[in-house]
Amino acid sequence: MNLPESQRLIGLTPATHTPFHPDGALHLDAVAPLAAHLLKWKIGSVFIGGSTGESHSLTLRERLALTERWMSVVKGTPMRVIVHVGSNCLEDAAALASHAQEHGAAAISALAPSYFKPRNLDALISCAAQIAAAAPDTPFYHYDIPSMTGVSFSMPEFLSKAAEHIPTLAGLKFTNPDLMAYLQCLQMDPGYWDIPWGMDEWMLGALATGARGAVGSSFNFAAPVYQRLMAAFAKNDLDTARREQLRSTQIISTLARHGYMAAAKATMEMLNVPVGPPRLPNTALDHSQKKVLQSELESLGFFDWLMEQ
Amino acid sequence: MNLPESQRLIGLTPATHTPFHPDGALHLDAVAPLAAHLLKWKIGSVFIGGSTGESHSLTLRERLALTERWMSVVKGTPMRVIVHVGSNCLEDAAALASHAQEHGAAAISALAPSYFKPRNLDALISCAAQIAAAAPDTPFYHYDIPSMTGVSFSMPEFLSKAAEHIPTLAGLKFTNPDLMAYLQCLQMDPGYWDIPWGMDEWMLGALATGARGAVGSSFNFAAPVYQRLMAAFAKNDLDTARREQLRSTQIISTLARHGYMAAAKATMEMLNVPVGPPRLPNTALDHSQKKVLQSELESLGFFDWLMEQ
Amino acid sequence: MNLPESQRLIGLTPATHTPFHPDGALHLDAVAPLAAHLLKWKIGSVFIGGSTGESHSLTLRERLALTERWMSVVKGTPMRVIVHVGSNCLEDAAALASHAQEHGAAAISALAPSYFKPRNLDALISCAAQIAAAAPDTPFYHYDIPSMTGVSFSMPEFLSKAAEHIPTLAGLKFTNPDLMAYLQCLQMDPGYWDIPWGMDEWMLGALATGARGAVGSSFNFAAPVYQRLMAAFAKNDLDTARREQLRSTQIISTLARHGYMAAAKATMEMLNVPVGPPRLPNTALDHSQKKVLQSELESLGFFDWLMEQ
Amino acid sequence: MNLPESQRLIGLTPATHTPFHPDGALHLDAVAPLAAHLLKWKIGSVFIGGSTGESHSLTLRERLALTERWMSVVKGTPMRVIVHVGSNCLEDAAALASHAQEHGAAAISALAPSYFKPRNLDALISCAAQIAAAAPDTPFYHYDIPSMTGVSFSMPEFLSKAAEHIPTLAGLKFTNPDLMAYLQCLQMDPGYWDIPWGMDEWMLGALATGARGAVGSSFNFAAPVYQRLMAAFAKNDLDTARREQLRSTQIISTLARHGYMAAAKATMEMLNVPVGPPRLPNTALDHSQKKVLQSELESLGFFDWLMEQ
Repeated sequence: MNLPESQRLIGLTPATHTPFHPDGALHLDAVAPLAAHLLKWKIGSVFIGGSTGESHSLTLRERLALTERWMSVVKGTPMRVIVHVGSNCLEDAAALASHAQEHGAAAISALAPSYFKPRNLDALISCAAQIAAAAPDTPFYHYDIPSMTGVSFSMPEFLSKAAEHIPTLAGLKFTNPDLMAYLQCLQMDPGYWDIPWGMDEWMLGALATGARGAVGSSFNFAAPVYQRLMAAFAKNDLDTARREQLRSTQIISTLARHGYMAAAKATMEMLNVPVGPPRLPNTALDHSQKKVLQSELESLGFFDWLMEQ
Repeated sequence: MNLPESQRLIGLTPATHTPFHPDGALHLDAVAPLAAHLLKWKIGSVFIGGSTGESHSLTLRERLALTERWMSVVKGTPMRVIVHVGSNCLEDAAALASHAQEHGAAAISALAPSYFKPRNLDALISCAAQIAAAAPDTPFYHYDIPSMTGVSFSMPEFLSKAAEHIPTLAGLKFTNPDLMAYLQCLQMDPGYWDIPWGMDEWMLGALATGARGAVGSSFNFAAPVYQRLMAAFAKNDLDTARREQLRSTQIISTLARHGYMAAAKATMEMLNVPVGPPRLPNTALDHSQKKVLQSELESLGFFDWLMEQ
Repeated sequence: MNLPESQRLIGLTPATHTPFHPDGALHLDAVAPLAAHLLKWKIGSVFIGGSTGESHSLTLRERLALTERWMSVVKGTPMRVIVHVGSNCLEDAAALASHAQEHGAAAISALAPSYFKPRNLDALISCAAQIAAAAPDTPFYHYDIPSMTGVSFSMPEFLSKAAEHIPTLAGLKFTNPDLMAYLQCLQMDPGYWDIPWGMDEWMLGALATGARGAVGSSFNFAAPVYQRLMAAFAKNDLDTARREQLRSTQIISTLARHGYMAAAKATMEMLNVPVGPPRLPNTALDHSQKKVLQSELESLGFFDWLMEQ
Repeated sequence: MNLPESQRLIGLTPATHTPFHPDGALHLDAVAPLAAHLLKWKIGSVFIGGSTGESHSLTLRERLALTERWMSVVKGTPMRVIVHVGSNCLEDAAALASHAQEHGAAAISALAPSYFKPRNLDALISCAAQIAAAAPDTPFYHYDIPSMTGVSFSMPEFLSKAAEHIPTLAGLKFTNPDLMAYLQCLQMDPGYWDIPWGMDEWMLGALATGARGAVGSSFNFAAPVYQRLMAAFAKNDLDTARREQLRSTQIISTLARHGYMAAAKATMEMLNVPVGPPRLPNTALDHSQKKVLQSELESLGFFDWLMEQ
């Protein structure tokens, strides 16, 4: 499925957090402020209910409700919603896919089942095909993230073999450091597939390799850094691009020291876009840990970086 | 929670398959014949909806229905039901726990969330505690299976630290080859914890180390082999014990070559206790693959082993 | 090569430390006291220059000198010497093998090359065959230790296929937790192969499975514990066997917390059999760390355990 | 040690093969033709006796002889020789380092010991320091290759902490896909350290990130492809750069299917620069396998790519 330019994931697509109340209950009213925050940064698409969205920690009912809320919040805005529907349970994934289509999602995406792992590429394709078939009019992105799933197959081979089984296949969410495979996917019938890059801290390497868009979690709180990075790269201003990428890695290293998920959500709170703590098994930061994090981010210059032109 | 002798998992507890129709739909009517089959082998307890039960491939609704069916099928029999309630989504796990208690489960058990992995032992204990608290009158077994979850913490430390946070903690389902940790758990306040062994093919080593019971998938189709193994060990007849353990390993090696889950379910069909094919991402055997498997099992002597006295 | 009973590795075979001076220079004069210490414990064979012997941290010249010293020290004693000759460089390994035979080693053994890893079982067998051929009159044990080498092939298959390529193949040093494979190896033409067990902390499970001997590092400083364990198992006194195995695990856990190699060598010093510090990359304990270790071992009762009858 | 521009590893530095006779004996006379071949491609520096050079499969004596031959072969040419001296045995590594300095090596480099792995960064630095101290006048590059050694520490931290312990530290041979760490290393006191990139198939990403040079095995037989890639990138001609990188990945994928080491050496033979088969545990290609490889490379267009202007 060769997507027209207007439907591709070009530029930044934040993988959004799922907002919770402090007690862990789903906090749907926090979706609208989050969307408004991202629209202020001229974000045109969001990837909801993925890894950053803690999909594996949500009930099916909550995932459905989250989709509905996002669809209603973005109505009338230029923001497009890509719904992550992957699950260990393919029945759930298919139900989510069908529901996403019904509610007008721009696209769907699913990662591989990871408790039981597909034994071979054919099994992985069968899984993806079962999900995609439940949303026959909606573009499907396979979401490759071997560091989390432990499922690692050749993505060039996936694209070659899956096309005939998944008529809606639009491309990949490529959260995989393998630039060699990335290049081979991009150059396979060049430009056919839409393959947003998923490792924010390595974006510069991906841009050189041919990336046109990216889906990632740090765009929620640091989109301006990446926007300058992409703009500089487009103008062949590598010094600026490297400076912004360095900032990106400094932010990510800082958050990772505190536990990335909890620290990322705490950072959103510092930006007055509260999305609550994560759910277990991700553990939250307490008040004093947040203070430490905030002061580390201030020392870096993080809050100033968001204001730079 | 120091379980009385009568409530412990002594002897064999099969981790049962979840029956499906050939099209993958849940087949609850196959539960009764499965229970009858196991009762014929004098099985006194079953572990349902675990890894062998493909819990990660079931919807929440299906898991609830499975529990209800098993509870109603075993009514009036000596068979006790341990319900696996673990899930990446702790809300689902807690709902399953509460429901299991309500329907009279003998015990519950949960594995660790594995997409997001607990960062440390405290986080793992918090997860287990959240689930166990939803079934405050039901013994809870933590299910340790690092080969599948990638979550690997010291189980002796788990028992030491978790007891105060989980009043219902009864022990561990120990699906972990680490005999050193197993011995340390068994010898911690000797006899306090109930720790059935979970690696069928290494049972003899576990018996020597102190195991009194075992939870495993191959007891569904090869219980007599293990019953002779345990009886022989109890009489210090090591030659017989080793012979039966060797048979066990030969069965398991044979199934593993074909894809363990699919081959195990196909074997049940050969015993006239059909439980259907597995769901994706586990792939089914086709007719000719089953024929090959059957003939390999025949060559081993597998079907005769079930008849031996 | 079916070894006669008298040549088999029955009972305990310590994998000895290579003695160094405090400055790291080879300390050959410490070999004789180490041998005397082990002879007092009625040890009948030693495995020299293996993992515990830090073979990878020794020059070829040092390895040759170590062999010569051991052979001269044991002359006139009942102690037999098994020389580890494995190396990433097969030329070195073959030179060591030939030299070991020339100096009357009872047997040789070699682990797999591990920087480059054999791609398949045939390549592994070719490596072993090249080494063994250099000592055509000396029994050869393949040394399987996947946790260190990352080389993991089926040992039952190894025995099946290697026999015709390695006429001197006597068995395996099985430093691998896989009791299933261990049983299958032991039961393959039962009793043919000599397969000493290599994981001290799991010995009880291996005895039940059929082990008759063991090669390990903790026999250097805790042989009496294991001798009681083996004697108790032979008399079917499982309570005693488990108590001694528990002690073994407590010793090993304690050493491991301090860095196993350095702590094991420091423990030898506490027994007045100094073997010096390890070489880099293993780091030594300083004086105060040794004091802490000593007091932890005292609290366990370790030094008393060595005196018990 | 801030290297002057003229001593840095800018552009391509092939990690050369160690030539063997068909029977596996060291073939020193093949060094001169190999150097001549690389000089024809205007290669200015070589990295000898590293992973590609099968250092772990060479005796110490052979490694010393290899260094001497290379030093004598390049005399009078503009080619500089960087000698890999790493070894599991640090005494050997230090001897190699001292010998390399004595014979005028431009620099030395060492990977981490990998059978025993340094427990922490300090231990790794101690290892590197012990080696570097043996060649106190020769620039030292730490060689980071976690995929082979299993030793994985933060390289930015390494540079920060190692500088004071290793006065000759010049930089890193960075054979690690982590572009985030790479950027942080490059930007640490920007331009101070010399950090050639070591993953040929991802070079484009590294160039964008700031790489100025690269050390790799595929430059032995495909230098023109990479020279065009680097030239195109320097002119901001990304289309050409991507085309050449794609060719690089196609070559490498093709070789990898046949076993990379053996296939790479066979490819050298096709270019009339025979370096013999690899030594075990790397297995050689037989005649018919070489024919298949050759025809695959022809189909790709590989031989034409070497001729293009």
